[in-house]
Amino acid sequence: MNITEIAKNANASALVLAHLSTDLKNQALSLMADALEEHCAAILVENEKDLVFAKKEGVANALIARLDLNEEKVRGMAKGIRSVVALPDPVGQVNSIMEMDKDLVVERVTCPIGVIGAIFESRPDAVPQISSLCLKSGNAVILKGGTEAQNSNKIIVKLLVQAIGKVPGVPASAVQMIETRSEVADMLKEDKYIHLVVPRGSNAFVKYIQENTRIPVLGHSEGVCHGYIDKFADRDKALRVCLDSKLQYPAACNAMETLLVHKDISEKILPDLVAKFREKQVELVGCVKTCQVVPEVAPVSESDWDTEYNDLKLSIKIVDGFSEAVKFINKHGSGHTDVILTEDRERAEQFLNEVSSSSVMCNASTRFADGFRYGLGAEIGISTNRTHARGPVGLEGLVIYKYKLRGNGQIASDYSGANAREFTHKSLK
Amino acid sequence: MNITEIAKNANASALVLAHLSTDLKNQALSLMADALEEHCAAILVENEKDLVFAKKEGVANALIARLDLNEEKVRGMAKGIRSVVALPDPVGQVNSIMEMDKDLVVERVTCPIGVIGAIFESRPDAVPQISSLCLKSGNAVILKGGTEAQNSNKIIVKLLVQAIGKVPGVPASAVQMIETRSEVADMLKEDKYIHLVVPRGSNAFVKYIQENTRIPVLGHSEGVCHGYIDKFADRDKALRVCLDSKLQYPAACNAMETLLVHKDISEKILPDLVAKFREKQVELVGCVKTCQVVPEVAPVSESDWDTEYNDLKLSIKIVDGFSEAVKFINKHGSGHTDVILTEDRERAEQFLNEVSSSSVMCNASTRFADGFRYGLGAEIGISTNRTHARGPVGLEGLVIYKYKLRGNGQIASDYSGANAREFTHKSLK
Repeated sequence: MNITEIAKNANASALVLAHLSTDLKNQALSLMADALEEHCAAILVENEKDLVFAKKEGVANALIARLDLNEEKVRGMAKGIRSVVALPDPVGQVNSIMEMDKDLVVERVTCPIGVIGAIFESRPDAVPQISSLCLKSGNAVILKGGTEAQNSNKIIVKLLVQAIGKVPGVPASAVQMIETRSEVADMLKEDKYIHLVVPRGSNAFVKYIQENTRIPVLGHSEGVCHGYIDKFADRDKALRVCLDSKLQYPAACNAMETLLVHKDISEKILPDLVAKFREKQVELVGCVKTCQVVPEVAPVSESDWDTEYNDLKLSIKIVDGFSEAVKFINKHGSGHTDVILTEDRERAEQFLNEVSSSSVMCNASTRFADGFRYGLGAEIGISTNRTHARGPVGLEGLVIYKYKLRGNGQIASDYSGANAREFTHKSLK
Repeated sequence: MNITEIAKNANASALVLAHLSTDLKNQALSLMADALEEHCAAILVENEKDLVFAKKEGVANALIARLDLNEEKVRGMAKGIRSVVALPDPVGQVNSIMEMDKDLVVERVTCPIGVIGAIFESRPDAVPQISSLCLKSGNAVILKGGTEAQNSNKIIVKLLVQAIGKVPGVPASAVQMIETRSEVADMLKEDKYIHLVVPRGSNAFVKYIQENTRIPVLGHSEGVCHGYIDKFADRDKALRVCLDSKLQYPAACNAMETLLVHKDISEKILPDLVAKFREKQVELVGCVKTCQVVPEVAPVSESDWDTEYNDLKLSIKIVDGFSEAVKFINKHGSGHTDVILTEDRERAEQFLNEVSSSSVMCNASTRFADGFRYGLGAEIGISTNRTHARGPVGLEGLVIYKYKLRGNGQIASDYSGANAREFTHKSLK
């Protein structure tokens, strides 16, 4: 099949998925979970092929670790799908009801987006995760995984499709997979049949996708996250939260990359904090003032302020006050996650209002910015978009809405011109 | 100023607008309305220049009519702005509150998108309308109007900016205007500072914008709207609604372009309906069966089914049943607005569920698909997107949300690994 046919099939499936009952969707999801557990051994055989190939190719150890499956990880995939079964159906929620006139009522109801193109890198566990979120939200999905994981992905998709096919009424082409890069290029042209592209990968990769398609992209660019230790910060909380924000998982997008410290508290807090970061092998660079307060810190270069290290490195700046901190974050941050450490309630609220990022926090680790931790259930990704869905995106980000208007023969002419009837516009919800 | 500077200014304004009180925004809006009324004479002088030029250039009469201002139209602009004052502030609405743990609460709050680029054609009344919607929703806007209206647009923007500047705290560069096509091309590159582009114009124009920017586009492609007269339709309602859907304003995007009729009711309804359409000079084309039932109808060509006439022309098809109608609409429609005429409740609900368009109706004119009529207040446009905002888009389509997390020193490490604390995930709203 060529991509246009795949996309057309997806679109036909999407029209069916859009009005499927929650019960049927959950039945299919449960069978998907069962199938992965039942055929665990077969999955591991295919996964071994990917591992052998990756090792031969000299793929980095970190990537191999993400690629490597075992029984526990396969059970984890099944568990992930079952957690999606447990989530409320995001489709069919009535957002608003407006009486336009007697017997003329329009309501706004959530519905699926349609067809999702999901492009991601090496982890095979992305396949069941993305597939289950799309199915639960009534969307058809076309998957493209990393080449390194292709044998693993292929068998997993095959099992999922077989499971879906067992539930009468659920179209098996709800989940489809493509395999080559040239197919991705073709997919990006199918804006007639594909309604949203979700890329997961490096910034460069997401930007490439954005530049090469007219389809809306739900993507994630950088995570240049800031901590700001305010003059009125509690010293212990500040130390704890800053260390965790940097160290709990430095490769994550919600890890802190730049620390701002109010000048009045810098001498009290920076020497200790720097010592603790150095204990953990964090490379530290800082502004001139920072280097004066803590000589162990190396001088920063201008480009550091806009860099997502994703690593054990941190840039530090001493600021003259709150306003400078907010301005700096709005200028150099990537709109991802930023935190203020302060005991001054008013300042905290001001920070939450004035910093324009999708997650703004006070006195808590930036590492909390995550769909599971926020209680959204499973997460399709973290979006740095400013439209549609922002921050950690769960099932809600995979639906949109339609207007349903029920009338009794009313026509627009009656509501215009001389003697026009007036709309009542009574909001019923 | 070059476009990058304009976009940077807009971005700086947007950061201020984002946390402005409703009161300040409404003060600025009221002064904007006053300014237009006070300087009505000056606006009409500039408008006359545009009219003289347009007539000299031989611009079509319909366009000249839209360009032509008078005292009443200027008062209408002021009234439009005051209606935006009366709308509830879309910013700062708390959508959800989730307790993650004791003293660790995340809430989702609406906030502006940031900077909007609005590109539109000849009507000068688009300037106050778009500017007021953007200001109320806390967004900065960069406007580009049609060249035909440039003198009118210039003075209106000048008056609006002066009015905004009178309210301390409201940044005057909340509203800016650019004038040339090359500036539009430059604007489309400013994805760092501009967060949404709203084009209003022809399909070709909207597609050009979509193809030439990485910025998300809230656009409107075709309106190929359908009426379907079901077997169980009430004859009189069907006639009324179909005539109104086609005739109340044939140039509108929500006018009906294709009529589907169930075979069992076609002989009873089509001859009369065709006669009435012919009385109103509607050109009619139809499928073979339609031409058999009503020989006055000319044969359709295949491309008609996908054509938005925007004119006194209608294509007619007789279908074998409900399913064929739904399939036909989902295939040939543009996802805008489609209506079923039926007295069978169940069929009506099935139609509303299975047709994937943004507005689906039963027994009411397609012409109701409009922000004002739906009770959304003013309308920024009708979107045929499948993400962010769909159908008639009011103030709500100009906001997104941010997550505010308030903690007390909590760190992510405490919630992972052995002896991990569990999240409580108690939804408080």
